[in-house]
Amino acid sequence: MKGRSFDLVVIGSGPAGQKGAINAAKLKKSVAVVERRGVMGGVCANTGTIPSKTLREAVLYLTGFRERAFYGRNYSLKETISLEDLSSRVNTVVAKEVDVIRAQLKRNGVTTLEGVARFVDAHTVEVDRGGEKELVQADFFLVACGTRPAHADGIPFDGQRVLDTDQLPKLRSLPREAIVVGAGVIGIEYASILSALNVRVTLIDQRAAFLDFVDRQIIDSLSYHLRSRGLTFRLGEKVVAVCLQPDRDRVCAELESGKAVHGEILLYAVGRQPNTDLLNLEAVGLQTDGRGKLLVNAVWQTAVPHIYAAGDVIGFPALASTSMEQGRLATSHMFGVPCRQCPEAIPYGIYTIPEISMVGPSEERLTEARIPYEVGVARYAELAKGQMLGDEDGLLKLLFDPKSLKLLAVHCIGDRAAEIIHIGQAVLTLGATIEYFRDTVFNYPTLAEAYKVAALSGLNRL
Amino acid sequence: MKGRSFDLVVIGSGPAGQKGAINAAKLKKSVAVVERRGVMGGVCANTGTIPSKTLREAVLYLTGFRERAFYGRNYSLKETISLEDLSSRVNTVVAKEVDVIRAQLKRNGVTTLEGVARFVDAHTVEVDRGGEKELVQADFFLVACGTRPAHADGIPFDGQRVLDTDQLPKLRSLPREAIVVGAGVIGIEYASILSALNVRVTLIDQRAAFLDFVDRQIIDSLSYHLRSRGLTFRLGEKVVAVCLQPDRDRVCAELESGKAVHGEILLYAVGRQPNTDLLNLEAVGLQTDGRGKLLVNAVWQTAVPHIYAAGDVIGFPALASTSMEQGRLATSHMFGVPCRQCPEAIPYGIYTIPEISMVGPSEERLTEARIPYEVGVARYAELAKGQMLGDEDGLLKLLFDPKSLKLLAVHCIGDRAAEIIHIGQAVLTLGATIEYFRDTVFNYPTLAEAYKVAALSGLNRL
Repeated sequence: MKGRSFDLVVIGSGPAGQKGAINAAKLKKSVAVVERRGVMGGVCANTGTIPSKTLREAVLYLTGFRERAFYGRNYSLKETISLEDLSSRVNTVVAKEVDVIRAQLKRNGVTTLEGVARFVDAHTVEVDRGGEKELVQADFFLVACGTRPAHADGIPFDGQRVLDTDQLPKLRSLPREAIVVGAGVIGIEYASILSALNVRVTLIDQRAAFLDFVDRQIIDSLSYHLRSRGLTFRLGEKVVAVCLQPDRDRVCAELESGKAVHGEILLYAVGRQPNTDLLNLEAVGLQTDGRGKLLVNAVWQTAVPHIYAAGDVIGFPALASTSMEQGRLATSHMFGVPCRQCPEAIPYGIYTIPEISMVGPSEERLTEARIPYEVGVARYAELAKGQMLGDEDGLLKLLFDPKSLKLLAVHCIGDRAAEIIHIGQAVLTLGATIEYFRDTVFNYPTLAEAYKVAALSGLNRL
Repeated sequence: MKGRSFDLVVIGSGPAGQKGAINAAKLKKSVAVVERRGVMGGVCANTGTIPSKTLREAVLYLTGFRERAFYGRNYSLKETISLEDLSSRVNTVVAKEVDVIRAQLKRNGVTTLEGVARFVDAHTVEVDRGGEKELVQADFFLVACGTRPAHADGIPFDGQRVLDTDQLPKLRSLPREAIVVGAGVIGIEYASILSALNVRVTLIDQRAAFLDFVDRQIIDSLSYHLRSRGLTFRLGEKVVAVCLQPDRDRVCAELESGKAVHGEILLYAVGRQPNTDLLNLEAVGLQTDGRGKLLVNAVWQTAVPHIYAAGDVIGFPALASTSMEQGRLATSHMFGVPCRQCPEAIPYGIYTIPEISMVGPSEERLTEARIPYEVGVARYAELAKGQMLGDEDGLLKLLFDPKSLKLLAVHCIGDRAAEIIHIGQAVLTLGATIEYFRDTVFNYPTLAEAYKVAALSGLNRL
């Protein structure tokens, strides 16, 4: 049983796999990446983050969303926005991003292998490319195989009326009414994009609350804006059946409470299933948890020490940003480069419309932990830049220790939230107080000025 | 000689005046602001920063500037962009901003007086509102009277073909060709906005280089983009005469070198004249420098200690952002609140298209000062967010000490440069190394990720 041999074989070319492979290559290791799709980039580049965030930018532009502040709430740049308008842009960006990834791997001398990887023994995988099989050996493995949308029993997925998020790009026309099942990050993001397109959305989730790691005030604000665009929440409601109407023109979700929800499409966005079932993990004696996830220690080793895992396959937080960092740190550890833990102050970006971002705990978490805090708030409406961009609803909130004035958390909803959160993250990570914001000159006009306004307002409350 | 009496009278309601007045009011002082225009906000809100930056946002949107990456370089959202399209948006934002300022002053109990202020004696000004005069007394004064466009002899300003920047909003239609005289920040900003509107611009300046406080690589990039939009530079060229053609349809600038430059309009953006000539400073024994500026010490006191000055009237850097800080710090000092110097790491935002921002010295300044540095660069084209926004030309550059790895400066050109610069500013001010960027998780996709890419590239060069 012989084949090509590498220092490291990475399974999957999403964010964790890419960054892990490139990091190892920079350490002068021989590296191969196995990708089961025809293209590099994993879910992130091909069906997940990149397409959905590009779609979001296209929708913001083509609907003239922010222009409504100037030209009225029914303003739309294009009379009718076709799926071609949207998908052409998504395809352009996906193609470029895949190209960037391929070029990066090539430039760093990483070998790419197309096919499905299956473990044969602890140091060998078989790469199956449509029946053509190759054995590949390695000293180390990084499992970054990612996830796919979970399909529940009894949901009649047909890729046309009942879709998972991977199937969304196949949609032929924009519906007037849509049902979104699942109010996790992915479900909420798509629901908000659809509602910005003036699609009437009903969002259903079994849980009574959604995104409960996010600060309540931010969620309330998001809910308010989604409702004002005609979105209906059905929280704490369980879908018991989904049926297509006889002419297949409409779909109906029946809820346990007896309600029936109708729409032209139903987007099912409940959970994702790790691709570990494809790996033949038994051959190396590895087991997954009940949901298909791999367990790892603090340095991303599985129970088999030369097999590491990173990215969505290990679960929370399953963000492209953290996955990249995990891939990089896992391969650093593997090859003896001193390794840090992931930093504590991880920002979260939720690409709803409006955008949400946060770093540090919510008010609710601080209260639970009995950590006293004071609040400083700035509203985009008070900022010249907010007015210029047509975003008067945005809000940035600082939570800080009323005694030491140390920054504890930043919560933001509004344009560019996911960008400006990093200013607060730096101050938080470097342990400074909110006096930093008071004493700093910010470019005018910017949304970043919100930090100064919020800090002054917070200090005035003391 | 009696009249109303205040702890503080502020002359001018621009950024320095506003923030100075509000700060004093929060310290429980009685404050009046005298404003010679009918509306609050000074040049910043009414003819300067706010209108020009709003115009810029409107142009970016209405021209579909960033969409050209997707739909080709001749793409424009509107077939013909009228001045009404642009000015309606500008007027909306100016009105809101003025309203915000008025509300802030009112909420803080600041008295507003309309009229021209003239010193009568060291503790009294006369406020002249169209002949109706009132005497107002104060213990302290803050002179924040701002500037107006300078008019050179021999330039036949008519507000139609030959304009200063205050007159630009009066333009009746968009020219096809424009001459901009003066390549300072204001001239360059307007030249870049006009060129984004597909106006053929010739930019003339006596100096051989422009914006020489900005990093060379950034200026080269800006020049490249402006030229690729058809802008012609005439640097090191002096305008000796400006003449209107007999039918007043065109204007011609004759240069010392013998060239003649033609256009439909000529925008004169050379220098600004402080409004100190209106103040009757002789009555208090104050003199200005040769150019009408007031000299102040480190705590913003003029030669007459109870008369402070802040904002554009004291000269460089004459930014809204720094003026606000000066106003705030001047009034803190005045009323005995411990006062810091303005922080050293001041960011500069230049709202050209593309946007420029910087914090810390340029490569050229570091070389002059014999401070060794290494460079880390990230290009927006490598960032998923850059592709999504259609900005593949953007660039972020870190300058750092190759031994200590301390961050020395950040230079950025591209979308949202003036926002994301504050991330680097925090790291610079708090004295951290570029390892901060390597070790930090950034939201994906964002432009802020450029910091991580640049830091990794910089560290790889060592």
